Amino acid sequence: MKHKIASLLNKLRQTKPLVHNITNFVVMSTTANALLSLGASPIMAHAPEEIDDIIKIADALVLNIGTLSKSWVNSMLIAAKSAKVKGIPIILDPVGAGASKFRTNIAQQLISDFFPSVLKGNASEIIACAGIESKTKGVDSVNNVNDAKMSALEISRKYHLTVAVTGPEDFITDGQRYFIVKNGHALMSKVTGTGCMASAIVGAFCAIENDLFLATASALSVFGIAGELAATECRGPGTFSIKLIDSLYQITPDTIEKFARIECQNL
Amino acid sequence: MKHKIASLLNKLRQTKPLVHNITNFVVMSTTANALLSLGASPIMAHAPEEIDDIIKIADALVLNIGTLSKSWVNSMLIAAKSAKVKGIPIILDPVGAGASKFRTNIAQQLISDFFPSVLKGNASEIIACAGIESKTKGVDSVNNVNDAKMSALEISRKYHLTVAVTGPEDFITDGQRYFIVKNGHALMSKVTGTGCMASAIVGAFCAIENDLFLATASALSVFGIAGELAATECRGPGTFSIKLIDSLYQITPDTIEKFARIECQNL
Amino acid sequence: MKHKIASLLNKLRQTKPLVHNITNFVVMSTTANALLSLGASPIMAHAPEEIDDIIKIADALVLNIGTLSKSWVNSMLIAAKSAKVKGIPIILDPVGAGASKFRTNIAQQLISDFFPSVLKGNASEIIACAGIESKTKGVDSVNNVNDAKMSALEISRKYHLTVAVTGPEDFITDGQRYFIVKNGHALMSKVTGTGCMASAIVGAFCAIENDLFLATASALSVFGIAGELAATECRGPGTFSIKLIDSLYQITPDTIEKFARIECQNL
Repeated sequence: MKHKIASLLNKLRQTKPLVHNITNFVVMSTTANALLSLGASPIMAHAPEEIDDIIKIADALVLNIGTLSKSWVNSMLIAAKSAKVKGIPIILDPVGAGASKFRTNIAQQLISDFFPSVLKGNASEIIACAGIESKTKGVDSVNNVNDAKMSALEISRKYHLTVAVTGPEDFITDGQRYFIVKNGHALMSKVTGTGCMASAIVGAFCAIENDLFLATASALSVFGIAGELAATECRGPGTFSIKLIDSLYQITPDTIEKFARIECQNL
Repeated sequence: MKHKIASLLNKLRQTKPLVHNITNFVVMSTTANALLSLGASPIMAHAPEEIDDIIKIADALVLNIGTLSKSWVNSMLIAAKSAKVKGIPIILDPVGAGASKFRTNIAQQLISDFFPSVLKGNASEIIACAGIESKTKGVDSVNNVNDAKMSALEISRKYHLTVAVTGPEDFITDGQRYFIVKNGHALMSKVTGTGCMASAIVGAFCAIENDLFLATASALSVFGIAGELAATECRGPGTFSIKLIDSLYQITPDTIEKFARIECQNL
Repeated sequence: MKHKIASLLNKLRQTKPLVHNITNFVVMSTTANALLSLGASPIMAHAPEEIDDIIKIADALVLNIGTLSKSWVNSMLIAAKSAKVKGIPIILDPVGAGASKFRTNIAQQLISDFFPSVLKGNASEIIACAGIESKTKGVDSVNNVNDAKMSALEISRKYHLTVAVTGPEDFITDGQRYFIVKNGHALMSKVTGTGCMASAIVGAFCAIENDLFLATASALSVFGIAGELAATECRGPGTFSIKLIDSLYQITPDTIEKFARIECQNL
């Protein structure tokens, strides 16, 4: 498994997949830098007038509903439709689902209408996507992890997609099997946009590996390892955020084989 | 006084107030990171469709008029109305007031229609809010500090709110008394968005302390101390901006008791 | 030549020109920080209601079409018209031209209708602006450098403007002469927004020097040197991006005289 992840990283750096992001204003810069450092190619574009052209050259589409507005929803719907036709993977990060009915509804609509390839969120967000009531405090996760796993299974089976619940341990399921990824560091929750970077990196891995269940788990393991490396000798979230970008650039297949902590189980 | 500020920081970290920011595109990321590092919880949301839901879970609302547009003004008006009904503090940062009639007018409208709890700007901006003509060069302050203090007093008394004029020394008044905060560092003016971070941090302190005059001065002192700590052994504004985020994470009540330079006077 | 660039840097820091940027969401923060660190004054504003007021106080206008949308195009057209009337330099960065017909068309319209003072892009983008078909992969340059130089000459002669093609070596032409700037570092292509920073810095130099051909080459040399300085003892693109901002702050006329690698030729 570790060897497989390591070889996916190699493939990613050789292929340099172009990841089309329609994402929130807060994280655009860090998301682009995370993709560049890892070895992928980012593009941010949301104008209805150009989405079809961008999808034509893109290898994956990442939709992120933070700082959502009506016109951006429109752009996401156009992009999702176009990506579906072309057949490239669609990754949905339902940022803040549960915090407002608007975001919950849009997340659910994107799932039910477009069957994205991968849904990735924290516990609160995945629970909200499953239609269960919960009290989200901002974009932090406060809900029960088990509820989130059940929600992930339900969504995964109903819509035939991979669902990832991120947290101290990441839980990824395709409805039949699950991965537990134990990589990562507590400081990641102290930097805005790390979840969004993770989704973009999932997009990059899904662009180069047809087994999206494996690609998603691999991406989260690699990103988690980068977080662990960045946390060494770190003075705080500022330094950490910069070292995280450095780590994505420096991480090697060898590092992955050494540090990946991931296990797969049948359900 | 120093002891009081130190205890407010403790309370903030225990309470983790959720600060709803409707702010400009330039500073969204750094603002969110400043709040996270300090120990508060940031949320950025501007869609009219979700503002009421977000205000329901928020502990303070921060309105920042940099990169303003008509649709964002609409969002701010909805949010201010909703926050007023709920009774959470509203902090207004009139970024660039004086640089365009549009921004000056919106700032004045937000003040006169919604009586925000705290108005915080540099000298030029506060003078513009008071309706006095001045020549703002971008978002830098070039006006006379005394004019700004007079403007602050006038606005404070007319609308019963706390007004903070930031600069090498911060001046905070509730119309009857004033604080002078002498913390801070010159490099803060070489990094974009430090003023916006300060406003967000004022929001976080106002969320946990009913005396908004005290809360505002405390926030500016804490942020200023973080700036002083960040400036030690610093090679330039890039490194400084990262160490500033680190300092907000590392700052302790002890540091505050040691470095706070703040004095209160009756008018 | 080196001495001339060095003296322009001095002039820039004394004059502190105000650079009005209508730019993309990804790079707003880093662009503002680059200008501040160098010694210029940034302002970001896009609302049609305030553009005329902002142009009144601005010394240069930088238009950047990344993350373009219809309403931002409208703002750019208003700003370009207003800047033309006032007579301040207009710098156009056609980010992603070639990647979509929308961006290509807008870039061409801005060039033909407003004759910007300077057009600055990578090879793919300049080729697209000249109306030649090419396959752009995201915002990276993949086209033949010679094609780009020919395109630059064509545009430059047709519209009487300075065109800069950036890359490992920058090529700047006014249609009669050309500069080759050999400063810069490979890590610059691993950080999002370095091209956009460069355009903003071109704007700052054009604000203080009437010979825009010289000003553009000077800006690119200074920015390239800052990149070289930042790359020393660098662990990756994260650290590099921060040191780049530091370098813009620390760079001196002496550094320029020592490191500038620039040559001018007649065509």
